[in-house]
Amino acid sequence: MIYSFRNDYSSIAHKDILNRLVELSENQYVGYGEDEHTKNAVKLIQQKIGAKSDVFFLTGGTATNKIFIGAVLKRFEAVISADTGHINVHETGAIEANGNKVLTIKNVNGKITSEGIKDIVNKHPDYHMVKPRMVYISNTTEVGSVYTKKELVEIKKCCDELGLYLYIDGARLASALAASDLTLNDYATLCDAFYIGGTKNGAPFGEALVINNKELSKDFLYVIKNMGGMLAKGYVPAISFEVLFEGDLYLQIGKEENDAANYLTDELKKLGVKFYSDSTTNQVFIILKNEIIDELLRDFDFEIWTTLNDNEKVIRLVTSFTTKKFHINAFLEKIKRYF
Amino acid sequence: MIYSFRNDYSSIAHKDILNRLVELSENQYVGYGEDEHTKNAVKLIQQKIGAKSDVFFLTGGTATNKIFIGAVLKRFEAVISADTGHINVHETGAIEANGNKVLTIKNVNGKITSEGIKDIVNKHPDYHMVKPRMVYISNTTEVGSVYTKKELVEIKKCCDELGLYLYIDGARLASALAASDLTLNDYATLCDAFYIGGTKNGAPFGEALVINNKELSKDFLYVIKNMGGMLAKGYVPAISFEVLFEGDLYLQIGKEENDAANYLTDELKKLGVKFYSDSTTNQVFIILKNEIIDELLRDFDFEIWTTLNDNEKVIRLVTSFTTKKFHINAFLEKIKRYF
Amino acid sequence: MIYSFRNDYSSIAHKDILNRLVELSENQYVGYGEDEHTKNAVKLIQQKIGAKSDVFFLTGGTATNKIFIGAVLKRFEAVISADTGHINVHETGAIEANGNKVLTIKNVNGKITSEGIKDIVNKHPDYHMVKPRMVYISNTTEVGSVYTKKELVEIKKCCDELGLYLYIDGARLASALAASDLTLNDYATLCDAFYIGGTKNGAPFGEALVINNKELSKDFLYVIKNMGGMLAKGYVPAISFEVLFEGDLYLQIGKEENDAANYLTDELKKLGVKFYSDSTTNQVFIILKNEIIDELLRDFDFEIWTTLNDNEKVIRLVTSFTTKKFHINAFLEKIKRYF
Amino acid sequence: MIYSFRNDYSSIAHKDILNRLVELSENQYVGYGEDEHTKNAVKLIQQKIGAKSDVFFLTGGTATNKIFIGAVLKRFEAVISADTGHINVHETGAIEANGNKVLTIKNVNGKITSEGIKDIVNKHPDYHMVKPRMVYISNTTEVGSVYTKKELVEIKKCCDELGLYLYIDGARLASALAASDLTLNDYATLCDAFYIGGTKNGAPFGEALVINNKELSKDFLYVIKNMGGMLAKGYVPAISFEVLFEGDLYLQIGKEENDAANYLTDELKKLGVKFYSDSTTNQVFIILKNEIIDELLRDFDFEIWTTLNDNEKVIRLVTSFTTKKFHINAFLEKIKRYF
Repeated sequence: MIYSFRNDYSSIAHKDILNRLVELSENQYVGYGEDEHTKNAVKLIQQKIGAKSDVFFLTGGTATNKIFIGAVLKRFEAVISADTGHINVHETGAIEANGNKVLTIKNVNGKITSEGIKDIVNKHPDYHMVKPRMVYISNTTEVGSVYTKKELVEIKKCCDELGLYLYIDGARLASALAASDLTLNDYATLCDAFYIGGTKNGAPFGEALVINNKELSKDFLYVIKNMGGMLAKGYVPAISFEVLFEGDLYLQIGKEENDAANYLTDELKKLGVKFYSDSTTNQVFIILKNEIIDELLRDFDFEIWTTLNDNEKVIRLVTSFTTKKFHINAFLEKIKRYF
Repeated sequence: MIYSFRNDYSSIAHKDILNRLVELSENQYVGYGEDEHTKNAVKLIQQKIGAKSDVFFLTGGTATNKIFIGAVLKRFEAVISADTGHINVHETGAIEANGNKVLTIKNVNGKITSEGIKDIVNKHPDYHMVKPRMVYISNTTEVGSVYTKKELVEIKKCCDELGLYLYIDGARLASALAASDLTLNDYATLCDAFYIGGTKNGAPFGEALVINNKELSKDFLYVIKNMGGMLAKGYVPAISFEVLFEGDLYLQIGKEENDAANYLTDELKKLGVKFYSDSTTNQVFIILKNEIIDELLRDFDFEIWTTLNDNEKVIRLVTSFTTKKFHINAFLEKIKRYF
Repeated sequence: MIYSFRNDYSSIAHKDILNRLVELSENQYVGYGEDEHTKNAVKLIQQKIGAKSDVFFLTGGTATNKIFIGAVLKRFEAVISADTGHINVHETGAIEANGNKVLTIKNVNGKITSEGIKDIVNKHPDYHMVKPRMVYISNTTEVGSVYTKKELVEIKKCCDELGLYLYIDGARLASALAASDLTLNDYATLCDAFYIGGTKNGAPFGEALVINNKELSKDFLYVIKNMGGMLAKGYVPAISFEVLFEGDLYLQIGKEENDAANYLTDELKKLGVKFYSDSTTNQVFIILKNEIIDELLRDFDFEIWTTLNDNEKVIRLVTSFTTKKFHINAFLEKIKRYF
Repeated sequence: MIYSFRNDYSSIAHKDILNRLVELSENQYVGYGEDEHTKNAVKLIQQKIGAKSDVFFLTGGTATNKIFIGAVLKRFEAVISADTGHINVHETGAIEANGNKVLTIKNVNGKITSEGIKDIVNKHPDYHMVKPRMVYISNTTEVGSVYTKKELVEIKKCCDELGLYLYIDGARLASALAASDLTLNDYATLCDAFYIGGTKNGAPFGEALVINNKELSKDFLYVIKNMGGMLAKGYVPAISFEVLFEGDLYLQIGKEENDAANYLTDELKKLGVKFYSDSTTNQVFIILKNEIIDELLRDFDFEIWTTLNDNEKVIRLVTSFTTKKFHINAFLEKIKRYF
């Protein structure tokens, strides 16, 4: 195999993070996030987002979604999501296992709008139905699109009017930051909470949950431990985030993987390849004939996203912090033969 | 501070593990434990335990207990534990959050016996009460004691007679292996499942859940994901376990930390220090006057376990893979002044 | 108000049931369903369905659905339902509160087909998604339609092929029995479990859950108590079912309320009233202009089902064991003025 | 059998309640507790307790405890109970099924004190343990004792100081009211919520949950429906409570059953029968030789509470609204033969 475009969590970690872990390996720290690296990583994130939000380092994306949503919603309350939302499709019922219904809106290019949210709320007027209480969006979305600032402002306004919390899944936040006009500062003001994805952006594991609305972080360490999300060595993910946020590494990884993906997209468009979604970030979804996919799989790895018909499938190509231009070029060389 | 005896998860990881992670950092792997390192780590553990049990790498001890017990018990079933058991005291209700009651037996030096188990079962005869269905023991226990093979055989026999599953929390299994006549092979045959603790034995994080009773591992990947325990980079904890199990590193760490603790215990006994429990493993519980504790805390760190009375407290001293003889000697030098 | 067509649970109970309760009021019984009336009611139902299924008397429809589905599904398993299904819309997340996702199929006149079921299963192939494990249908459906025997046979076949349990919500089973070719005996053989609704068919409260697949009724009394569904005076709902099933009262009520509804439907059709769904049972859904609805509400009560547009709404008219022909005629008299 | 002293829920209902149900059987009501009988029953209870507390009519004791405690506690919070408490022993884990731990205090004659509560709170200082948040007591207790006003005032004061809610299980509140100096008005001011037991005091089923602390009743109809506790015919239990509370019937039943039990107790004491607990209410616990129990069971029914030793067992004799003096005398006649 020449290269895997399967996902952005294919390699252990960015070398700067591993080097830092090696460098600090002789030290002793207290557990459960009460150490100085955790404090510093929190401070660095607070500086970058420009707000004194509460920050918690958790192990993975599904765990973070499950813990935050589970901490906030009562048993009869529901979270609104795009039908393509990760919590709705790809978390094996982790939200429902908490006891909460996921109410879905038909997505448009992976996104939802305030109209969709209002419609759901209107359809749930009384105690015979669940009570919508939170909106969940992913940025970047599951199909690689991004929300603009205008869109997010409108969703936030709608949530405020309807008494809904707004939570943003930032599994690929670095890529979203590099692709839209939304800054980290906007995330601190335009939602109740969001998470900064580490796993898909160079960390060996770990996500930073940022809770802007402090009413929602009360007793949060109890929630984390109760839900199985507390690490004894809390300083390990914290150190990863220190490395990512003490300089520009976090944003730089997002930018570089977007650049690689955009280059790939541009070249594929020139070839006349059909696209499944409109993505400007590090996930590229294209439609290919089955026999071409088989040929490509001899040298590259990637995910078969869905089957369109008897002859065609959608594949997903993901760039990451390890993707180099020559990887893309090698892929383009190969695919050119069929177009 | 000269040294912290606070716990055995004070340092990032054993250098062999970190070096291996650095060495492999350029590689690409598939996610969710479907990679070759996971397969190899599973094989290495199966070889060491001498059985083809199912093995899953999870993030931490509470998560592992929560996921395994939650996977097995129905909503009206209960798990029996020592009153001092980690699941009963120190998991913030993670088991109850799954929906299951923890039924407790008064411990004797941290342990339970088949008599206690039988008594609990006798007291729960019908559908107005929960149905006892599993026995949970920790080895080493929360107070540093270990079960002998004879004791475990008897408990297993009792469980079989009463239709109870037996599950062993091996957060400190390396220390238990080095301190008792129970071998890894015994763990493969004398319980339905157990976990091999990584976090407290040199790994940056991660535990290996070993399910011997294959009826209990059905659809287990669904359970892990649903309960927020699945890592995208499943190969990271797997690599830690490869390093620990390809040679003797796992057992060696347990032996060395026990040796350090036993040396500490022997010397403290010579000084006439009072002990709170009878431990032969890497946790040493001693009773000290408050003013001595204050003095020791100037140079060392450790946990205040409990308050005995107005003048005395119990402290816990834990040795780990980073503990050297000179750390112990420094501590002994200091404490000698007060005896 | 002349009469309320709001629902079929508007009056305390059929007089035969109340008279029986009065008659037996001096007797003493053991609790929790271990009494002779419960045994007899179970026997009567078993005779009527022609099978030795397990029968449990529960308090209401949502409780019955919640308890049965919750007893059967594991935390990562899901139940498939029409989007209009009671468990999906009108149970305030009771199924999700158990931990289970409801996967929905777009209904056709309130019903689902085996194609829809297969499609859902195909879209849930691995452990990153919930595992479909049960199909839920209501008969009569939420819009008054009924499944034919041919349809149910096909759904059951599909469920068997795909390893899915089939569960039927019979809140209005009497009306369904009177309106389709499915007999009580068919319910005993064509699904894993169903419930015989009492609340909506003359009982003061109570439903009879019938579990044909005995693997699913193991430890069921534990489940009922654990989920808050066990009554101390279990003999009270049992006596209601004795009265309903010792003769033909149960079926007779269904037939009479269908006759009343069908008469209403026929007359409304003659008037040219528009219908919202195609119902042959005791729920009639019609589309009316807002001002007509306001006029009707002066003399009758009924539920506003949904708003179609600025000028029209859907109303639901339900007949019950208390509905007499003169109630229908009075309603027809009034509505005629507007057509 | 001459008479059953097995429990106070052996007969369908007090004749006044059944007569009322018959009398109202032709009427039509709206569902889900939005009818006039529910409103009136709420008003009657508010008048009797002298406070505008929120009142909800639920189906049974375990359901009421499960719903109220589940509505209030977060997933990491715990409820404190006597070890003999109904929620700890006899609800098949219904509270844990909600996700909450029950922390127990060793009872003294069925009761707990503020010292016990403080001790539990002191032992749960941080996020590694559950957070105690509510105290549960039963009045009358499970062994027939009652709290005095002085005791309840002290417990309430302790709860206020420690930030704990106080909830009282009044399954046998009528008996408690007749046996202690606590009035219904005291229950409205000395706890956050309590329930007025109907099932064990003449109703066919149903309990009235009274929530004094209105912060805890927010969205309560959602909770009830979500947890499977909502009845379509909510007016049925409401009518029972109207009958019980429009005059003095509720208290009168409690007084009469206590009088019967006290007469029984006095006569048994004269005979030299040994007592298992100190009860002044409608449950009498006595210790008898096995052979005497066997003889008594020929003519009477009662529960074998527990086995004391090879020769003796504890039996429970419960009086109810159906118990007449001649039932007691018949029992005394028989038991006299053995003393």
